[in-house]
Amino acid sequence: MPAVLADLSIEARWIVPMTMPGRILEDHTLVVRDGRILDILPSAAAPQRYAATVLLRRPAHLLMPGLVNASTYAATSLFRAVDSDGTALEQRFLGTDFVRDGVLAAIAEMLRSGITCFADRYYFPEVTARIAAEQGMRALIGMPVAETKSSWAGSSADYLTKALDLRDEYRGHPLISTAFAPHAPNTLSDATFARIATLADELDAGIMIDLHESADGIAVCADRHGKRPIERLWDLGLLTPALNAVHMAHATPGDIELARRTGVSITLCPLSDLKAQGALPPAPSFAAAGIPLSVGSGKPGRHQNQDVWGEMKMLAAMSCAGSPSIAAWSALAAATRGGGAALGMEDVGSLDLGKWADLCCLDLSGPAVRPLGDPVTQLVFCGGRDLVSDVWVAGRQLLSDGMMTRLDWPGVAARADAWGRRLNTGD
Amino acid sequence: MPAVLADLSIEARWIVPMTMPGRILEDHTLVVRDGRILDILPSAAAPQRYAATVLLRRPAHLLMPGLVNASTYAATSLFRAVDSDGTALEQRFLGTDFVRDGVLAAIAEMLRSGITCFADRYYFPEVTARIAAEQGMRALIGMPVAETKSSWAGSSADYLTKALDLRDEYRGHPLISTAFAPHAPNTLSDATFARIATLADELDAGIMIDLHESADGIAVCADRHGKRPIERLWDLGLLTPALNAVHMAHATPGDIELARRTGVSITLCPLSDLKAQGALPPAPSFAAAGIPLSVGSGKPGRHQNQDVWGEMKMLAAMSCAGSPSIAAWSALAAATRGGGAALGMEDVGSLDLGKWADLCCLDLSGPAVRPLGDPVTQLVFCGGRDLVSDVWVAGRQLLSDGMMTRLDWPGVAARADAWGRRLNTGD
Repeated sequence: MPAVLADLSIEARWIVPMTMPGRILEDHTLVVRDGRILDILPSAAAPQRYAATVLLRRPAHLLMPGLVNASTYAATSLFRAVDSDGTALEQRFLGTDFVRDGVLAAIAEMLRSGITCFADRYYFPEVTARIAAEQGMRALIGMPVAETKSSWAGSSADYLTKALDLRDEYRGHPLISTAFAPHAPNTLSDATFARIATLADELDAGIMIDLHESADGIAVCADRHGKRPIERLWDLGLLTPALNAVHMAHATPGDIELARRTGVSITLCPLSDLKAQGALPPAPSFAAAGIPLSVGSGKPGRHQNQDVWGEMKMLAAMSCAGSPSIAAWSALAAATRGGGAALGMEDVGSLDLGKWADLCCLDLSGPAVRPLGDPVTQLVFCGGRDLVSDVWVAGRQLLSDGMMTRLDWPGVAARADAWGRRLNTGD
Repeated sequence: MPAVLADLSIEARWIVPMTMPGRILEDHTLVVRDGRILDILPSAAAPQRYAATVLLRRPAHLLMPGLVNASTYAATSLFRAVDSDGTALEQRFLGTDFVRDGVLAAIAEMLRSGITCFADRYYFPEVTARIAAEQGMRALIGMPVAETKSSWAGSSADYLTKALDLRDEYRGHPLISTAFAPHAPNTLSDATFARIATLADELDAGIMIDLHESADGIAVCADRHGKRPIERLWDLGLLTPALNAVHMAHATPGDIELARRTGVSITLCPLSDLKAQGALPPAPSFAAAGIPLSVGSGKPGRHQNQDVWGEMKMLAAMSCAGSPSIAAWSALAAATRGGGAALGMEDVGSLDLGKWADLCCLDLSGPAVRPLGDPVTQLVFCGGRDLVSDVWVAGRQLLSDGMMTRLDWPGVAARADAWGRRLNTGD
């Protein structure tokens, strides 16, 4: 029987497909064709079965789905060089060049961290979409909707028009998808929220929104509307499985029950919340209620980063009192499969036949994880981005043994540094 | 004027001496002779002034004091391969070989993390001391004291005799010092605690003990002794500046006031506490009271690691609500100078003339910290062990561009893995 042609075979010591907890394949090979997973089979059987253009051996490595950063503001990476949250600087410096250079810097950081997909919310989403596509990164581009004028749009109608144009432009794109990103539960009118709900339903689009991030925000909503933000969104028809609620640092049992009943998914940013609010989300209660969870790296600011590892570790740490290994597997699931689900990407976040070959390979030969028992438990609690050796998105290698293959890091770094100087001097 | 001879000059883009918050020296050179810091001066002036045997250029790097892991159980690294906290396995496998191999694995991990000094508490402390000295690591060796028999000692008198022998053996050692490490506030008799207090006072020795780590432990003490553990230690004369209290995850305002008044120092393990107890120590309250703080990587177990970076980030995150940069500088101070102070090592934890050349060099050229504003804020919030390029202890280079110069990692890894298999199979 002649061998089947393939684009890429990766022979790994361990493969963790994240299709079910505890599943670890030893000495297996993952075969890629046309950007998708064609097969996963014992390495001993692979050479007879497949003739791949590229064969890579990773003998001390673990291959798993790439991490999904389910909430970030990539362009605002540039603000970490300044001693403020950047909002005062936005009016002066925000534009297409700023977004381009910030997104490139963030993508570099994400690739080095094993992240293959990110959900973004920021102005000039068409620039973020274009840069992600050019760099071969997968992204869910949140299309901002606000009532107030920004350098990107003038009114809520204008935001929505631009959003619909962008959604049209990327329909069917293999890497880029889009979702509505209303500014905040307190800043949009009832009419605009209702319009977003209708559009999302008609277009089968997702909605991403920060929810119950701060106690202040909840108090403001109670003042203005006489209800909690999640109740307001419920009344306006936004609580559906299409809604991804980010943060939920403050959630009562009633909030949790409402989220559970309506099928909302939650993106947790516990480390980011601890920094910004001094509060941790009730992650174990969300998990106990069966709410779909994902993790995101959170808000812009001085402590800004793309560190999904740190957020995943926090989620595991918060859930660790019972079984550390169950906590670790659940946290990794949130950072992979859970991210794909929250972003409406069914073919992302686990390694199974026909899914996208969005992959992260980790070198387990170093002291951080030795001796090695359960690799996933040790990766989550003792690993980190420093173990990431290789990254592929849709089968294309973007990181090879720690080196970026496509992104011009020296050039991107120089432009990021120039922004750092401008933002600090105000010129 | 002829140049002064020196052993080593390190020319760095940035030097952060940690002698005071906010102090950053640009384009400076640190000069080492006989293991200690001879000078820190502008790089432009260094070649005329000093003729060093070795000159290293680190043009995109930040040089700072090595991190101090103020509480670990190095040998128990081996337990992370098994699904338990290891206590059941200790009876069967604990011995000099176990401790040797575990400590070597932990030292490898610490070096790769930029840690130059660790405070350890475990059985067979003489093995830990010997291995640390052989590997050129600085360590405070906690000499365990318990009432019950272990494979190391039979009775509290036996523990103390062995402790005093070990202390004698290392008196005046350039790398190794010793301290008493009573097992726990609830497990020692009044008489043994009083004896430790007397000995520590006579010998000018430190005492390290887990304190208020768990709510259970506090309740047991209240049952048995009618007081909280910190009150019991106070009554027995142990609350002095020589006492380093580890954890303090549960502390009332009264506990904090007692610690402050008596000059006790506290080693925080917030991430470890969150994992083990689901609770965070009231770090901002400790800081507000002016209690000397340090950080340690905490308890053995499946989630065991030597990740002082993670603990430092948690400390910064918990204190971030005011100024992120003040929180970051304070957290790095706790992980360096604060560690030296807690361990009774005045010449450790900051870069100043005459102090030990215990150094950590970090490569800031990558995407994790760009664009670069305040390097320390970004290191603490966005950096990590992956940025560590070089480590020196007492002027001797133990890590060079990520490679261990002295420790035989392949050999150590093979022995660690063999222990992992034995512990898992029970053979």
